[in-house]
Amino acid sequence: MSNELDLASFIRDVPDFPKAGIVFKDITPLLGSSAAFEETVERMAAAFAGREITKVAGIESRGFIFGAALAVQLAAGFVPIRKPKKLPWRTFRHEYELEYGTDVLEIHDDALTSGDHVLIVDDVLATGGTGAAARVLVERFGSRVAGLSIVIELEFLKGRDRLKGFPVHSLIQYR
Amino acid sequence: MSNELDLASFIRDVPDFPKAGIVFKDITPLLGSSAAFEETVERMAAAFAGREITKVAGIESRGFIFGAALAVQLAAGFVPIRKPKKLPWRTFRHEYELEYGTDVLEIHDDALTSGDHVLIVDDVLATGGTGAAARVLVERFGSRVAGLSIVIELEFLKGRDRLKGFPVHSLIQYR
Repeated sequence: MSNELDLASFIRDVPDFPKAGIVFKDITPLLGSSAAFEETVERMAAAFAGREITKVAGIESRGFIFGAALAVQLAAGFVPIRKPKKLPWRTFRHEYELEYGTDVLEIHDDALTSGDHVLIVDDVLATGGTGAAARVLVERFGSRVAGLSIVIELEFLKGRDRLKGFPVHSLIQYR
Repeated sequence: MSNELDLASFIRDVPDFPKAGIVFKDITPLLGSSAAFEETVERMAAAFAGREITKVAGIESRGFIFGAALAVQLAAGFVPIRKPKKLPWRTFRHEYELEYGTDVLEIHDDALTSGDHVLIVDDVLATGGTGAAARVLVERFGSRVAGLSIVIELEFLKGRDRLKGFPVHSLIQYR
């Protein structure tokens, strides 16, 4: 472990974003460092090495950044999971509950097959609602799901409780 | 050239998206093929090899997909250029004209320095307005700009006319 970067030191706290009382975990200093970004992607890949991932599904939009780099690292294809009306082709959609109201995620209806082995990627695990919704979309194809790979886990929001039986790997944890 | 994939064969035409009369170039089949996505990123990187790129600036949100993978390939950092109010830190913003109305792009005010050598990445070059706006943002830091790397160039929209003196590299062209 001695040669590893302290990736948490590349995360910046931004108070009151996107609204008062929330401390946002800003990943842009990590992305901007070629060494930190490269190590992040390598460590995300290492956690699922040998699992024969065929597709990485990245959740819009910061999940695109880590997911796309990870797809190339794992020699897998990349599948975008997007907010409504962004994808041009026919989609499957899944509506899920937020603290206030609901949200929707979509995936192209030909994005995956039952033969795929899929790794879902996002930047942050908070309450787990988005990750759980992405899992529903991927499982709709009959694909196997290797798990959820994320950079930052906000453990105090207990997102793993909504992802029972689903392997979750995070690089940085806040308690 | 004989071993190269025909990347254009992985682009799907979607009529009437996002509105009637427009034929949208859907890149998701290209992304979903591990071989095509990997070759895309390798060919984008090869066009700027040896140029000592320090940062890849990807334009939200499909530019994140290619830009992030390219950043790792080039051992560069990654900088997101986003739509308004998405970035948590202080930003520089640039408003630019569209066919109808205006649009705005933002970049963190500490994303780059005058020592950086920056490659801007997006998926499609259409009228060139977005690429020109991204260039203004990057040049505001005094950074050198290596050029604009894109996957698909819609030549009939003459985007290069708005990017005079600015190296543009595209992999797939539609005339």
